[in-house]
Amino acid sequence: MAIESPRPAVEGGRLPAKATRGLPLTVSASVFADGHDLVMAWVRHGAPGGGGWEEVPMAPAGEDRFTATFVPTRIGAWAFEVGAMPDAYATWLRDLGARIGAGQDVRLELEEGARMAEGAASRRAVEDGDEAALLALAARLRDARLTPQERLAEASGEAAGRLMRAAADRAAATASGPWPLWVERERAGFSAWYEMFPRSQGAEPPRSGSFRTAAERLPAIAAMGFDVVYLPPIHPIGRSFRRGPNNTPDAGPDDVGSPWAIGAEEGGHTAVHPDLGSLDDFRRFAAVASGVGLEVALDYAIQCSPDHPWVREHPEWFRHRADGSIRPAENPPKRYPDIYPLDFETADREGLWAALRDVLLFWIAQGVRVFRVDNPHTKPFPFWEWLISEVRREHPDTVFLAEAFTRPTVMRRLAKIGFSQSYTYFTWRTTKDELSRYLTELSGTEAVDWFRPNFWVNTPDILHAYLQQGGPAAFRVRATLAAMTAPSWGMYSGYELCERVPAAEGSEEYLDSEKYQLRPRAWDAPGSLAPYVTRLNEIRTRHREAISLLPTLRLQEVKNDRILGVSRMSRARDDVLLVLVNLDPHAAQEATTWLDLEALGLPTDAPFEAHDELTGVTYVWQGPSNYVRLDPAVQSAHVLHLRPR
Amino acid sequence: MAIESPRPAVEGGRLPAKATRGLPLTVSASVFADGHDLVMAWVRHGAPGGGGWEEVPMAPAGEDRFTATFVPTRIGAWAFEVGAMPDAYATWLRDLGARIGAGQDVRLELEEGARMAEGAASRRAVEDGDEAALLALAARLRDARLTPQERLAEASGEAAGRLMRAAADRAAATASGPWPLWVERERAGFSAWYEMFPRSQGAEPPRSGSFRTAAERLPAIAAMGFDVVYLPPIHPIGRSFRRGPNNTPDAGPDDVGSPWAIGAEEGGHTAVHPDLGSLDDFRRFAAVASGVGLEVALDYAIQCSPDHPWVREHPEWFRHRADGSIRPAENPPKRYPDIYPLDFETADREGLWAALRDVLLFWIAQGVRVFRVDNPHTKPFPFWEWLISEVRREHPDTVFLAEAFTRPTVMRRLAKIGFSQSYTYFTWRTTKDELSRYLTELSGTEAVDWFRPNFWVNTPDILHAYLQQGGPAAFRVRATLAAMTAPSWGMYSGYELCERVPAAEGSEEYLDSEKYQLRPRAWDAPGSLAPYVTRLNEIRTRHREAISLLPTLRLQEVKNDRILGVSRMSRARDDVLLVLVNLDPHAAQEATTWLDLEALGLPTDAPFEAHDELTGVTYVWQGPSNYVRLDPAVQSAHVLHLRPR
Repeated sequence: MAIESPRPAVEGGRLPAKATRGLPLTVSASVFADGHDLVMAWVRHGAPGGGGWEEVPMAPAGEDRFTATFVPTRIGAWAFEVGAMPDAYATWLRDLGARIGAGQDVRLELEEGARMAEGAASRRAVEDGDEAALLALAARLRDARLTPQERLAEASGEAAGRLMRAAADRAAATASGPWPLWVERERAGFSAWYEMFPRSQGAEPPRSGSFRTAAERLPAIAAMGFDVVYLPPIHPIGRSFRRGPNNTPDAGPDDVGSPWAIGAEEGGHTAVHPDLGSLDDFRRFAAVASGVGLEVALDYAIQCSPDHPWVREHPEWFRHRADGSIRPAENPPKRYPDIYPLDFETADREGLWAALRDVLLFWIAQGVRVFRVDNPHTKPFPFWEWLISEVRREHPDTVFLAEAFTRPTVMRRLAKIGFSQSYTYFTWRTTKDELSRYLTELSGTEAVDWFRPNFWVNTPDILHAYLQQGGPAAFRVRATLAAMTAPSWGMYSGYELCERVPAAEGSEEYLDSEKYQLRPRAWDAPGSLAPYVTRLNEIRTRHREAISLLPTLRLQEVKNDRILGVSRMSRARDDVLLVLVNLDPHAAQEATTWLDLEALGLPTDAPFEAHDELTGVTYVWQGPSNYVRLDPAVQSAHVLHLRPR
Repeated sequence: MAIESPRPAVEGGRLPAKATRGLPLTVSASVFADGHDLVMAWVRHGAPGGGGWEEVPMAPAGEDRFTATFVPTRIGAWAFEVGAMPDAYATWLRDLGARIGAGQDVRLELEEGARMAEGAASRRAVEDGDEAALLALAARLRDARLTPQERLAEASGEAAGRLMRAAADRAAATASGPWPLWVERERAGFSAWYEMFPRSQGAEPPRSGSFRTAAERLPAIAAMGFDVVYLPPIHPIGRSFRRGPNNTPDAGPDDVGSPWAIGAEEGGHTAVHPDLGSLDDFRRFAAVASGVGLEVALDYAIQCSPDHPWVREHPEWFRHRADGSIRPAENPPKRYPDIYPLDFETADREGLWAALRDVLLFWIAQGVRVFRVDNPHTKPFPFWEWLISEVRREHPDTVFLAEAFTRPTVMRRLAKIGFSQSYTYFTWRTTKDELSRYLTELSGTEAVDWFRPNFWVNTPDILHAYLQQGGPAAFRVRATLAAMTAPSWGMYSGYELCERVPAAEGSEEYLDSEKYQLRPRAWDAPGSLAPYVTRLNEIRTRHREAISLLPTLRLQEVKNDRILGVSRMSRARDDVLLVLVNLDPHAAQEATTWLDLEALGLPTDAPFEAHDELTGVTYVWQGPSNYVRLDPAVQSAHVLHLRPR
């Protein structure tokens, strides 16, 4: 027996693949033998803390690929094994049928079957009841009062097959594995993030907002259906080389600076910015969040302002220039004097790495379990592999989101070595062709084994030209795409107000960026997309498995280059969504679909319902070809729940 | 540093990848690190029998993929390793250039460069001459009489780069490997096979031909440019249940039977059929072959006729039915009473496997080094893996061709576990779309690491409908495709005479198949394709590397569904062929090409020559779009040698 390419797998099993508690996981492998004998295959999977292995039979899925699906029930380190052996009984049955069909004398074959059943009955591990049943089967196969057809029917029965499979001598089995899995909690595989600067909320410039005033905003965020509220760094902000509004080099006394310039005389990565309040205030904020169903995610940004206590206490943790000064961050010829990167190859590597781990453990002790990691691609892979496994040893429920916008190899590597979720190129994929190819890459390749995309519609750093130019329809389009095609999505506050003025022509930076100044907002401004966003998150919750599962995502043909068609499906195909989005924010587009109804588990010859979850309207469709018209002035997208009538 | 997915590789390095002596082998890997530093990478490869490792620098090939090419010089077990480390000097240089370009003060950076050079000079392993040169470099970098630009130029020199790379501290390097390789002799990677039944050549039915009469045909085969002459089994043929002409069940006394019904009272797998002569006659035949540049390939068919000596001597090596009789071959409901398969799971597995190995060793002792293995997919994979490595331990020059026409997984598996070459689905790929997809699969996927296709235009079992219906033009088309797109190709005798009468409508069997009767032929019949075949094999020899290398094969756009365009290239792109074939054997077709000139290393803005190797005519082409007309009545194909004027 050959068992090839079991999946999910990362780098041939050297690193664990990803799974999510409560979400169906499909294991597959190429299973085959020489010759034409039939084979049987199974998956054994084991949960943490022992308790033995559970076995699931695999079913053929074409071209010698076999699959089995199970639902991991606990978080932590799991493993699976694929087992296979020739299915002598099934082969005998198939051949017996062919011989009887051809009118051949099958007395010898029936005797062979009887002996096979007797052999099975004699096996040690077989239970008494089964033994008797197997002996009875042998007797029936030899029963000359029955016709060959009758004996074939007996042998083909479900009970006989089950008995023979159960009694098969596993000593002859081939196994592949164990293949490691890391099972995370539900939120790693399904989440809706909202990013906010707490200092803006309730601010009356130059007076900063605080955790107390920011907490007042939490119910509204929860009401929109988000489940993670992510805060940029909440630590004291350096004063040396502080950046002023719009990233100008000279900050005035009232300028608040960038939260990513971490550390001042008030403290570093474990301190809270005094304007925001105390550590107690943070805990109260987190408690309010929790009360409305929101989990707080903190930013883990490994860098220091020149005023960070570590600069004084541990100058050896930084890189130095030839004149002995600390080397600030740079991307030659650009220099960032307000930021000191840490030197991961410092002679005191042990001390530095431990300190960085302890920062996380500190916030974990405050109840935080979700971290958005800033620029992980500029720190060594071995550090992340070590850090994540260190933290997860005691806190396996910790979720890490990698904010890496860099080359594909590096983004993938970070996912492989343990990050729960990843920022993506989604923000820059705006045409039908770009989106189609990107969704195919994320859902239809081995990336599904270890890469969990989190689609952000905007960030404090990225206001895409599509949004700048497309008006509110563009904002609805991008939110629909993100929320409906990715298991996790995120929005940075202000998006719901369609904020879209760039710092300059051709720039993706916001004008008056919140990174450098307080930006209190009027949330009740007319035209807010909050109701639309709320509806999107409601749909996600109602169709949770379909939205969570990337491997079942399919592009659906729509005969118009501006309308994207994507279907989402539960594993059992009992929940099917068809997302149709007019990517043109300026003009109505119409088209006909050409749906793959068979793949969607829908009737090909009978009408079915297409219920628009966005509007509540139900259409009756039939066949693969159905007419669609989407006018951005009215509705840029359909999210159709397809169901038999 | 991360080094991912090194290639060539089989199953993550669990089995050796394939290489060919004398043929450039390209090793590639994804090599990258965190951040934006530049990296350096290299391949170290080792030949059998020690002698240390050789190192080749890798060059970036886009998207973090690095490649290096080397030519294995000896056959046997090799290995390679990919090494990589950050290239601190190259990174410093790049950044220095950017800083100077921006007019920054770079005194500190120049001092850092000087220290880097001094550090390199101080390394133990550095040779004296290099040490002095590095110290001189340091001094120049500090030389205030030089402008920063001058010092940058100094540091950017090729010599400085080479010195710094050579002195780099490899203690900081990451390595991946060793990755196993099996290097075979040239013929494994490049061969032209001719299949003949020696009993037919010189036969005067009912009198059989012999090795002596068959040897008379060898010069003509060699003159056509073939280098392997493959003989169906040459052993005594069983008499029980012998098949008559056209596979009828009742053979008459003069019927010769199928050579694959191996074994009679005269002997088994190590005996020679008395009609063909003696073992000495075989050796003389092989000597004549060798004298004209042909190597003899024998058929290794593991099965016995009921009259095979093993049936009597080792009944335990066969499967038995419930009544104690030996179980003949079958594919229920079909039965093949003239063939007994061996039982690889016999209790005397050791004895059987050794006997099967000894058959090969016997013929190897007679000088045979090429075996065409009959139906390997009906025997266990572990047997082949064991057998091939057993044989190659003493005889690493043994070439195995797998005759498996079965599911893709099984065919691939046989190649992975050691077969040198494989029969393919080529015979059944006749349309442009089918051929394009199949060539892409064989040349553009990881299959190139371990699958060496041998394209057969026909076999005694397969006369494809395309040949039956297409007339001589079809025979030219298929020979051109096989010879020009695959590193190895094969032809079963009679093809050059365009033999094309099937046993029945819809059958792929030949009428009066040579499998069951003597088929002497009139080789000088008018219309023979021998001259055309000769020309094809000459072209192969003249463009040997381009034809041998599958990874450089590219489909080229031709705007006509009946004309296939395929380019073949040497690794250095100094030999480029464009094969254009009109797949329609009945009608002329015309089209324009749309060539990827850049990939072909040809000028995009100047004329180039397209010299037709089939006709000797030279065209002058320019740009990607060129007109082609192919009339099967005149010429079904161009094989154009593209070269700058």
